[in-house]
Amino acid sequence: MTHKTLFDLPTPSLVLDRSKLARNLRRMSDTCARNGVSLRPHLKTAKSIDVARMVLNDETPGIAVSTLCEAEYFAKEGVSDIQYAVCITPDKLERVAAIQSIGARLVLITDNAEVARAIADAQGRIDARFLVQIEIDCGENRTGVLPGSDQLVEIARILDAAPNIDFDGVMTHAGHSYGCRSLAEIETLAEAERLAVVTAAQTVRALGIACNTVSLGSTPTALHARNLDGVTEARAGVYMFGDMFQAQIGSCMVDDLAVSVLTEVSSHRADLNHLTVDAGALALSKDRSTEAVPNDIGFGLVSDLRGRSIAPQMIVKRVYQEHGLVPVPDGQWLADYPIGHRLRVFPNHVCMTAAMYDRYHVVDSASGNDTEIVAVWPRVNGW
Amino acid sequence: MTHKTLFDLPTPSLVLDRSKLARNLRRMSDTCARNGVSLRPHLKTAKSIDVARMVLNDETPGIAVSTLCEAEYFAKEGVSDIQYAVCITPDKLERVAAIQSIGARLVLITDNAEVARAIADAQGRIDARFLVQIEIDCGENRTGVLPGSDQLVEIARILDAAPNIDFDGVMTHAGHSYGCRSLAEIETLAEAERLAVVTAAQTVRALGIACNTVSLGSTPTALHARNLDGVTEARAGVYMFGDMFQAQIGSCMVDDLAVSVLTEVSSHRADLNHLTVDAGALALSKDRSTEAVPNDIGFGLVSDLRGRSIAPQMIVKRVYQEHGLVPVPDGQWLADYPIGHRLRVFPNHVCMTAAMYDRYHVVDSASGNDTEIVAVWPRVNGW
Repeated sequence: MTHKTLFDLPTPSLVLDRSKLARNLRRMSDTCARNGVSLRPHLKTAKSIDVARMVLNDETPGIAVSTLCEAEYFAKEGVSDIQYAVCITPDKLERVAAIQSIGARLVLITDNAEVARAIADAQGRIDARFLVQIEIDCGENRTGVLPGSDQLVEIARILDAAPNIDFDGVMTHAGHSYGCRSLAEIETLAEAERLAVVTAAQTVRALGIACNTVSLGSTPTALHARNLDGVTEARAGVYMFGDMFQAQIGSCMVDDLAVSVLTEVSSHRADLNHLTVDAGALALSKDRSTEAVPNDIGFGLVSDLRGRSIAPQMIVKRVYQEHGLVPVPDGQWLADYPIGHRLRVFPNHVCMTAAMYDRYHVVDSASGNDTEIVAVWPRVNGW
Repeated sequence: MTHKTLFDLPTPSLVLDRSKLARNLRRMSDTCARNGVSLRPHLKTAKSIDVARMVLNDETPGIAVSTLCEAEYFAKEGVSDIQYAVCITPDKLERVAAIQSIGARLVLITDNAEVARAIADAQGRIDARFLVQIEIDCGENRTGVLPGSDQLVEIARILDAAPNIDFDGVMTHAGHSYGCRSLAEIETLAEAERLAVVTAAQTVRALGIACNTVSLGSTPTALHARNLDGVTEARAGVYMFGDMFQAQIGSCMVDDLAVSVLTEVSSHRADLNHLTVDAGALALSKDRSTEAVPNDIGFGLVSDLRGRSIAPQMIVKRVYQEHGLVPVPDGQWLADYPIGHRLRVFPNHVCMTAAMYDRYHVVDSASGNDTEIVAVWPRVNGW
């Protein structure tokens, strides 16, 4: 059965507004062009070839991914330049080789000399050349080596010397930009991110080793960096869709949010002044990132079917596996939102929410008919 | 490619220990038999026909589910007695009728007179008979009507009078048992749950309306109720697998946990005394339920490949989309857990974690070879 509008789609479902997506993509492309760097969109949020096709072009030929499952999917769909932006482990190299054999250039990252040696040692055993970048820690304190460290030098020398490896450069990710609470903080952190990766590139070049790629990025820093001198590319992912957390840390406006969950009112409790919707912990995810920002919206901001917020206090306050609980001021609200009434919920963290679905139901709010489903786009989940 | 052991399976993957599952199933079956009630296993956690087949038999012919997608899946697999244990909305009735046409008896629940009227009004429009129970609130304050309330009477009369409806009884769910912190509290709450649903049945019968089913349940109350007089069936789901939260509220022991996530060490930070594993927010879920119990294990307890806990402090403390961060006391631990070393993580809330995967890799710790994969069982996700 083909569902034609948000009125006949089963609930819960994942809704993607194509015109808002296009606007978000253009904003980041323009920002990167202004900063003189290539954009390498990170598809870890969208996980969709249809979204990738909207952003890929001659100036933006490559993507980043977060799983080998994504890499396989995009390679099969014809994407030829893919960075697997999570530290590689040696037992995954055979799968990497298989993805390259589909026709994709698959760039790996590492922050470890033992892993670099293990890739070099695959020579003879795995019939493939590996493209490898070194991950730099610019202050996130998660993975990566420090910009001027002995480890960086050691790994670069191992990669450069190995006959089966093409050393491709350095990369970093300022994931700690999610902790910023002002544009000034983001700008400062973006400069720290730039300095870290440019310094790392200089460290490598001082060894006489070419360092083609100097890559950085997170949605907040890619959007708000004032200067990207020495950087070759910026990566970002969540900017495509935006979410309630990103809206509160300055990456976008609530009106920019391209992804929401279609739901309907499933129960009323007049005695307790709440209603439930049929989007709960699985449909929204249990991400609580807005707990750390000024406006805690629980598990999601409730909007009408056209995506307009109803009231600031109209939020999914609690979730159970298949129930979302929405407190209301009084019984009049229950009359206004009867059982079966359809709503949309904007989530805290769209990467987590979208991962619960295998497809997007695409609408186009700029078309004049913002409840018509104009396309269904599959997603790739899992590992 | 068929993976034969936990050593060659891609990471992250979902691992199910069949012998622990069997032990958990037997414990609940024995408890229900001792209490003189039928068991209606809730498949919202397992979402697997292979798991359903382990628990269904002549004494346990029916299941509960939390989505119509599950109902469709189990009906197609031949399960003939299914309760959809989330309040029905009128626009889902056509889908209910389609599931019944596969051959399943599909019991619906409602807590609302308008919905009861809408089901009655489907007469003539939808060619189906509907089996409906009334949901009772036993203190969870989520959905349901109160046991002696006017609403209960009104709904029962509507359902009883409708020619296209078979009124099937009353049901309740003591989900607030998850807030209990002692067995005494659970026993008290189990008695409140029993009293609520038995009182509701008496209210209905006093109207001259038959009330065949008197159903209750949650894993803690179904396991620890001291008396289920007047109850016909108990429902529970998470008991099949258990998780770190259930272990801490007295539903099981850590050694009973049947589901874990296979992962491997992906990075070392000697300068920060941590390692990362390749199971992050998507592989484990962002559920933080152990935040509310004495022993907060972050996003999961790390164990060795055979499922034995390594140290109480060896937990996934932070998650990023594909990284789990595990603090370690000192560098010796990094030497002991090199990159590529395989581990298993026991999650906070297995319903949320399992939902991130489309299959279980089944092992059997009682077989003497606890890393061999003896089966692959699919799961049904989505709505």
